[in-house]
Amino acid sequence: MVVELISVGTELLLGNIVNTNAAYLAEKCAILGLSCYYQSTIGDNEDRLMESVHTALGRADIIILAGGLGPTGDDLTKEVVAKVFHKEMYMDEYTKEQIQVLFDKRGIKITDNNWKQALIPEGAIILNNDNGTAPGIIIEENGKTVVLLPGPPNELIPMFEKDVYDFLNKKTPNTIFSKVVKICGIGESAVEEIIRDLMETSNPTVAPYAKTGEVHLRVTAMAKCEKDAKKIVKPVVEELKRRIGFNIYATDSAVTLEQTVIKLLRKNQLTLSTVESCTGGMLAARLINVSGASKSFHEGMITYSNRAKRKHAGVKKSTLLKYGAVSSQVAKEMAIGGAQSAKSDVSIAITGIAGPDGGTTEKPVGLTYIACNICGKVRVKEYHFSGNRAKIRENTVAAALTLTRLYLLEYQNDNNNIIILEKTKKK
Amino acid sequence: MVVELISVGTELLLGNIVNTNAAYLAEKCAILGLSCYYQSTIGDNEDRLMESVHTALGRADIIILAGGLGPTGDDLTKEVVAKVFHKEMYMDEYTKEQIQVLFDKRGIKITDNNWKQALIPEGAIILNNDNGTAPGIIIEENGKTVVLLPGPPNELIPMFEKDVYDFLNKKTPNTIFSKVVKICGIGESAVEEIIRDLMETSNPTVAPYAKTGEVHLRVTAMAKCEKDAKKIVKPVVEELKRRIGFNIYATDSAVTLEQTVIKLLRKNQLTLSTVESCTGGMLAARLINVSGASKSFHEGMITYSNRAKRKHAGVKKSTLLKYGAVSSQVAKEMAIGGAQSAKSDVSIAITGIAGPDGGTTEKPVGLTYIACNICGKVRVKEYHFSGNRAKIRENTVAAALTLTRLYLLEYQNDNNNIIILEKTKKK
Repeated sequence: MVVELISVGTELLLGNIVNTNAAYLAEKCAILGLSCYYQSTIGDNEDRLMESVHTALGRADIIILAGGLGPTGDDLTKEVVAKVFHKEMYMDEYTKEQIQVLFDKRGIKITDNNWKQALIPEGAIILNNDNGTAPGIIIEENGKTVVLLPGPPNELIPMFEKDVYDFLNKKTPNTIFSKVVKICGIGESAVEEIIRDLMETSNPTVAPYAKTGEVHLRVTAMAKCEKDAKKIVKPVVEELKRRIGFNIYATDSAVTLEQTVIKLLRKNQLTLSTVESCTGGMLAARLINVSGASKSFHEGMITYSNRAKRKHAGVKKSTLLKYGAVSSQVAKEMAIGGAQSAKSDVSIAITGIAGPDGGTTEKPVGLTYIACNICGKVRVKEYHFSGNRAKIRENTVAAALTLTRLYLLEYQNDNNNIIILEKTKKK
Repeated sequence: MVVELISVGTELLLGNIVNTNAAYLAEKCAILGLSCYYQSTIGDNEDRLMESVHTALGRADIIILAGGLGPTGDDLTKEVVAKVFHKEMYMDEYTKEQIQVLFDKRGIKITDNNWKQALIPEGAIILNNDNGTAPGIIIEENGKTVVLLPGPPNELIPMFEKDVYDFLNKKTPNTIFSKVVKICGIGESAVEEIIRDLMETSNPTVAPYAKTGEVHLRVTAMAKCEKDAKKIVKPVVEELKRRIGFNIYATDSAVTLEQTVIKLLRKNQLTLSTVESCTGGMLAARLINVSGASKSFHEGMITYSNRAKRKHAGVKKSTLLKYGAVSSQVAKEMAIGGAQSAKSDVSIAITGIAGPDGGTTEKPVGLTYIACNICGKVRVKEYHFSGNRAKIRENTVAAALTLTRLYLLEYQNDNNNIIILEKTKKK
């Protein structure tokens, strides 16, 4: 079944607000197995709204309209839809009462225009609005379903979850199931090269999305029930794992790269400290965004000045003078000194030139060194990022997390080998 | 002139991402005085995209398409638009070079599909992409203008600001001029109460936008030339300044709250350090986002554990035991010890419960203490933030910047009085 979303409101056309309703409704429709090919946004204009509803009716089974149900003269979604279906409107007494109750509760005198919200097209289903005055409405006619929802997300979302989801679920024969495969350490085009053939299938579909320093692949299947859909998704996810290997850090959309790093630290009972120069706390901020990070991450240092690099991370004055603050040598000393100072097992150090100033021919803007010290084994990698200051810093943080994850995996493997070896010995 | 926005991407139709590009572009078009009647979102599907471009060409002078310019087979916006205008594509050598440079810089081997991004429709204007590989494109034909922009906001926004805004501005008969008045320290509804009458005028218009911890008012006027538009805007901005006073931190859209803080520090020749617990580096990261911050900000401490609070900021063990890590007493000691340790004039300290865990009845999630130490004068403020972990941390950082700005202004005023007094004495 095909659904189409129409958002109504001049404030959207003027860019005064971001249309989060469209993303919310689209996601729910995808979960319900409804195919959505078009979303559109129209202002509070009768002719254009009428035309858009007619166009949508020509290409979709279900239309969801959000917004334009309020009390003002601008709000005309209901009136337009009633006209399209040649429905008379009547004053619904129960809705009228509900509006009165709400105003009494708020202690506000009701203005006459509010009664407009109790006008309902003949034969429509009324959806009670627990969080506002405008009720939702469902009209079913000639095999088409039109759902009208209030625009404010705090009214639309509860109404959808309470009444609309189940209503639409009964209409859809299929269920959609999707899994997100999250990848770090390879670029989008390289990922595509590896999985091109898988992207050409239609059930499941495999679609890539580039994030800063990451690529996400969404594997989506449609089937009669969720169990069958999962069965279709599973072998493709397995195949992706086989081809992409350890660069996949999660197959759960809720898991973040920083969570993976914190999890690896906890699993291996390691503590972490950070020593940041150009990223100035962004790496630590991402790590601490993980609830419970405090068990592995105790402290971070923002060593923006040379003095701070020397004081907190014990970087030698001679190293700073000889190689400059942005050098692999200084990064290395930061990671060594950071671990010592924080008494942590692992230390990540970052030094780079985020720009727009400070670049030279030898050391251009975007040059960054990331050092990772895992229990005394220190490695430094050189990076060249492009873009503006913010972009360079975001990419640096993503690269630092990717690198740390990689080295932690190596550490874990080495450790496991030792454990296996010991077990073997015991035999 | 009429503009229409088309967002391209199956991820939008599936609700995987919120369409912030549409709001951004719509706002810019409104500022340019372009009328927008329709926005639509289409998936990565040739036929439907083709149909949408044709429909838009029938009702708008300018079409802006966002997304679908990437290297993968899914990306077909450029190909579809070239087809609509019957344009051949050629391999643009300069763009090819740019892509090669970017990959070389990143030290990544280029995959063949990337060259697709250097294919340009004949006669098109090429917009350099400073933050990614896909260039933007402008096609002008038969009185219509089609602008193609890359989908990632961190590529689309800089490209629009650098090249597209001025290009479109030349096309519009009226000039729009707007000024953004940026406010911190008062909520949106309180601001609205103060300026309600000013929000009812039509030229200039005054529109409020709530940001995290800030309110922005955009004053927009339309006139024949920029000079006339500026004349309409000026008295209203003056009136806003009169009513809102020192809570206005900037009347320039490019100025950020953190820039204002750094500027105040430099003006008063003060250095700053940060001592962060629950925000874990976010405050430092925002400050260091200001290019040249290094002159005032030398170091930051992320003291997530009690040990780190004691070691870096000299918080007393007894204070931690008696009042707990999240207390005004600990915040105060963090701000005192932070300044001593970093040898800085100013120190901002943050300790709070960002949740979702760690809250109690006495100290619920959202409770935060911010201490600000300016040359030995230490003050602590208690806050109660709501929302999820990320929201609480963002609000905390905004509050810390707002508080520091306020105290720095006070410091400056006190200092100026001394200077004035000295001058008077000399007379």
